[in-house]
Amino acid sequence: MVLLRQEIGSALRARRRELGRTLREVSADASVSLGYLSEIERGEKEASSELIASVCRALGLRLSELLEVVTEHAASAETVTTLPVREPVVQAASAA
Amino acid sequence: MVLLRQEIGSALRARRRELGRTLREVSADASVSLGYLSEIERGEKEASSELIASVCRALGLRLSELLEVVTEHAASAETVTTLPVREPVVQAASAA
Repeated sequence: MVLLRQEIGSALRARRRELGRTLREVSADASVSLGYLSEIERGEKEASSELIASVCRALGLRLSELLEVVTEHAASAETVTTLPVREPVVQAASAA
Repeated sequence: MVLLRQEIGSALRARRRELGRTLREVSADASVSLGYLSEIERGEKEASSELIASVCRALGLRLSELLEVVTEHAASAETVTTLPVREPVVQAASAA
């Protein structure tokens, strides 16, 4: 199952790393504890919408920009989870 | 400020109405109380990622499909809300 908090967390982490910023810096800017931000990035905690907005601001990201990344990633994750269902068909074809 | 729970709530409500389904039907399918689903649709409660996934399933919607709608709507909401945000910056500059 593709979970929204995991998709949001990994998109936030990717963006932070892209900017070369530390958890400490971003957590300070977003007024959230370092440990909590880390849990959010790892998809372990559900962040409130206000907190997501605050972290987005700290990362210079619009909510819609974050969601664009999240949507794309969720779409490929959903495709991947669907793939194994098709595999046996391919194997059967090459074996024939 | 554009809040994720409000965007998700209105997208879920729009989809449910599109299908001509009642809150009662969808809440039963998603194993969530009618009152809680209603609060989620109105953007008053943060739904857990598992609950969002469950409501999506009840609505025959992939998470990425929901997010696509949410992303588009957030982007237009930001365009509308972004305009007044720039004003104070101009005022601060002219006051200095």
